[in-house]
Amino acid sequence: MRRVTVYDTTLRDGAQTEGISYSVNDKILIARKLDELGMDFIEGGWPGSNPKDMEFFQAISKERLKKAKIAAFGSTRRKDKTASKDANIKALVDCGVKFVTIFGKAWDLHVKDVLKVSLDENLKMIADTVSYLVSKKISVFFDAEHFFDGYRSNPDYALKALLSAQGAGAAGVVLCDTNGGTLTSELTRIISEIRPHIKGELGIHVHNDNAMAVANSVAAVQAGCTQVQGTINGYGERCGNADLCAIIACLRLKLEIDCLGKDNLKELTEVSLYVSEISNMKQQDNQPFVGSSAFAHKAGVHINAMLKNPMSYEHVRPEAVGNKRRFLTSELAGKTSILFKAKQLSYDLQKNDKNTKRLHKLIQKMEYEGYQFEAAEASFELLIRKTLEKYEKFFELEGFRVIVEKRRDNTLISEATVKINVHGARKHTASEGDGPVNALDAALRKALRDFYPELTRMHLSDFKVRVLDSKAGTAAKVRVFIESQDEKSSWWTVGVSENIIEASWQALVDSIEYKLLKERTIKKQAL
Amino acid sequence: MRRVTVYDTTLRDGAQTEGISYSVNDKILIARKLDELGMDFIEGGWPGSNPKDMEFFQAISKERLKKAKIAAFGSTRRKDKTASKDANIKALVDCGVKFVTIFGKAWDLHVKDVLKVSLDENLKMIADTVSYLVSKKISVFFDAEHFFDGYRSNPDYALKALLSAQGAGAAGVVLCDTNGGTLTSELTRIISEIRPHIKGELGIHVHNDNAMAVANSVAAVQAGCTQVQGTINGYGERCGNADLCAIIACLRLKLEIDCLGKDNLKELTEVSLYVSEISNMKQQDNQPFVGSSAFAHKAGVHINAMLKNPMSYEHVRPEAVGNKRRFLTSELAGKTSILFKAKQLSYDLQKNDKNTKRLHKLIQKMEYEGYQFEAAEASFELLIRKTLEKYEKFFELEGFRVIVEKRRDNTLISEATVKINVHGARKHTASEGDGPVNALDAALRKALRDFYPELTRMHLSDFKVRVLDSKAGTAAKVRVFIESQDEKSSWWTVGVSENIIEASWQALVDSIEYKLLKERTIKKQAL
Repeated sequence: MRRVTVYDTTLRDGAQTEGISYSVNDKILIARKLDELGMDFIEGGWPGSNPKDMEFFQAISKERLKKAKIAAFGSTRRKDKTASKDANIKALVDCGVKFVTIFGKAWDLHVKDVLKVSLDENLKMIADTVSYLVSKKISVFFDAEHFFDGYRSNPDYALKALLSAQGAGAAGVVLCDTNGGTLTSELTRIISEIRPHIKGELGIHVHNDNAMAVANSVAAVQAGCTQVQGTINGYGERCGNADLCAIIACLRLKLEIDCLGKDNLKELTEVSLYVSEISNMKQQDNQPFVGSSAFAHKAGVHINAMLKNPMSYEHVRPEAVGNKRRFLTSELAGKTSILFKAKQLSYDLQKNDKNTKRLHKLIQKMEYEGYQFEAAEASFELLIRKTLEKYEKFFELEGFRVIVEKRRDNTLISEATVKINVHGARKHTASEGDGPVNALDAALRKALRDFYPELTRMHLSDFKVRVLDSKAGTAAKVRVFIESQDEKSSWWTVGVSENIIEASWQALVDSIEYKLLKERTIKKQAL
Repeated sequence: MRRVTVYDTTLRDGAQTEGISYSVNDKILIARKLDELGMDFIEGGWPGSNPKDMEFFQAISKERLKKAKIAAFGSTRRKDKTASKDANIKALVDCGVKFVTIFGKAWDLHVKDVLKVSLDENLKMIADTVSYLVSKKISVFFDAEHFFDGYRSNPDYALKALLSAQGAGAAGVVLCDTNGGTLTSELTRIISEIRPHIKGELGIHVHNDNAMAVANSVAAVQAGCTQVQGTINGYGERCGNADLCAIIACLRLKLEIDCLGKDNLKELTEVSLYVSEISNMKQQDNQPFVGSSAFAHKAGVHINAMLKNPMSYEHVRPEAVGNKRRFLTSELAGKTSILFKAKQLSYDLQKNDKNTKRLHKLIQKMEYEGYQFEAAEASFELLIRKTLEKYEKFFELEGFRVIVEKRRDNTLISEATVKINVHGARKHTASEGDGPVNALDAALRKALRDFYPELTRMHLSDFKVRVLDSKAGTAAKVRVFIESQDEKSSWWTVGVSENIIEASWQALVDSIEYKLLKERTIKKQAL
């Protein structure tokens, strides 16, 4: 079976997406997930351009990754510096990685107009940079920027750029369609012309400005490339990079090429959602393979045919990429995840139990309303417990009120009042806060702390808001995720409403109930 | 110059998108717009499947279209009916069009498992249907459903399906990749094999399940297809149909093929926005050619190079498709993007001006506080205007108050009051809403509408919330983006605060001020 390595640049090129801005912690979370997926290379950033990226490389070096190799990105040396004196290259060495990708010019237009050096000098810059890094025991990939535009303009020179890197000891060269404007037919022709000259890894790195990034990446592999670069969900500057989700699925399912680990393909949908969540970007419903509509059937004739033969309107099985088939007129979603979670919680549940059906129906209804449990397992667990156990409420809400007021002198006040009933005892509290949700959180804790002192040992650690159906503007539904934390663990909960305060309230209450249930279970086990 | 006809099926196949539901009037508006763009064919619907579609054909027959021909869609006759007695085919004749597209089976699996007729009978169904319609003086295109899957399974039979239609007098046959799973290389090979057998128009109709719909459509034209089918923005079931915006741009700009009228390419971006507006779907920022990020540059090295040579990071000129170049304002970009934006706004600003430094400092300070202008250009523009001009406020806020209350019976109320002063006149209004921000928006518009009636023509179209420094939990800073829209354009504004209501307020006010400034500029130019 032929093998292709996958090189992810979500954390570097993907971070160039309009609207994406990763913290170091975001990047660590994504890197861990990519490693779980079986990614071969993770490009973490450009340490020479950005102090935050240097921080990432320090942090990731302490992680125990299963398989992925971390790569740093940088440019060829400056025209007026030797490689050893160039701060950008020094940063690549200092950041401690074993793999570095160096981008350099392969298009004569760029050499003349942007770098403003002679064609020969550019080749020297490539060779010097690669050989210096190789002398530091670093494996180097050479990203030939604008390779295809360069080849159209001056094929000999573009090839020379590759050979300079190869001659200087690069482990591989990568053909970049940086402007994303190359047609598939031309890209294939060019690769087949240069293929015989390349000895090491031959990579492909394309952008989507023609809406052809996936087709071009797959065609490049068919034409002989052995490494494919891209980003999760196709994030990237302008129209994005090539979407690795679709590329990996095509390589595995259509061409039977070995990439990632065995069976990892099933995690693709989850990884796509996870990365979109951390990037605070809505996953595209119609995203090939992993989008929520990718296997959703609406036309009556299609649904009828699907019931006769599922191959009739699906090019691959949705389960192969961890996605689900949906019939838009009559929803038929999966019970598997319920059974799986129930088992984790030590409930013995079977597929056809009354309780399974009840839970299934309830979850479908909630998902339809906008709840999403993949990223809020504590709420999901709570839902299962509440459905399967005699659940005794920890408290009853009698009402809350939140006021935000801005006065002429610009003072801004957020105040919340909460009325609750704890097994007959009423509490009415008020609190101010930095914002309405913070005030509500403070008032609720004040009301509960005498009854449940263990709550003082937990705090909210993260808070995310996603606007659903955003076309409705400020009347749109809002999904709030809250992460809470105590000294032992952290957990996510979810709330959904057209009212952001109500959605936050639901997630707050879930997070507190989850903590209280967890403590009770620990106590029971101790007895 | 080679010519290719463009066949739009936004109103039929595009209407299968999850979330899209067109009224007859929506369809008329879109059809008029497509005609203006120079579309050759507009497929209006399936009159046999849906009474609303029949209504559309009646209404469109009264329109004076410049160029586009209206086509109706239907299936081959039922297995147990003659064509003349089949209600579906009768509806096609009755709807009064001169062009009909008939879809029929070209995949033996579908013939056996879905139609459940013999292979021969299916060929007769195709021929009967085509010849009956031709006898009624209707030009027929034959959509060979699942042609590529069929050809893989049984090439002789798939070709026979085409030849049955051709033999019965079809004006053209259309190769459909209905499941969207065919790789570009295979699609090209299959087309080149069947090409010699086809005499009339040879069409291509593909779906995007492999993320290859645009590449496949363009490759099909290169392999000899003379008609390309698709939808505006790639709307369609599952992962969508082929996006005509990208296809048309590629054919014209990359292959110099004649399609649509001369100069019409410049309308592409506007048509994409218009159709997304009527479809109530947000246009994808990163949509190739027409998206708002398609020519947006964020990386510092890219922006620097673009200033030296605009070809350096753009595959086509944005003006060619009616789009705009943008330099995103981020910490990396610095003064360059300020100067560029100022120039666009007709301010003559130099790098070392006092005002440039002042603006640069202000923006750095705001970005440090959490503002982000790359995705909120309207706020950025406003900031420049306010800094460089004597800026006269449209209104003064004297105060607002927002109350969210939840009662024991679970009723939830959001109410806002707003006090403003417009050049001496005070307004004090109150409004309820679906949530606090919606209530605030409603109360503010109520207060302003007597003074600024142009505000009734704008509405909020998108809303995003990002929690910054999320480690602080519910006390974290929140960044709110709001997108507003009128009949001509859309714009993003930003607000930042620890209080989500205050952050939303800032973005709301910016969006309204931007609209009012825009109208004032238009009025000035008209004088």
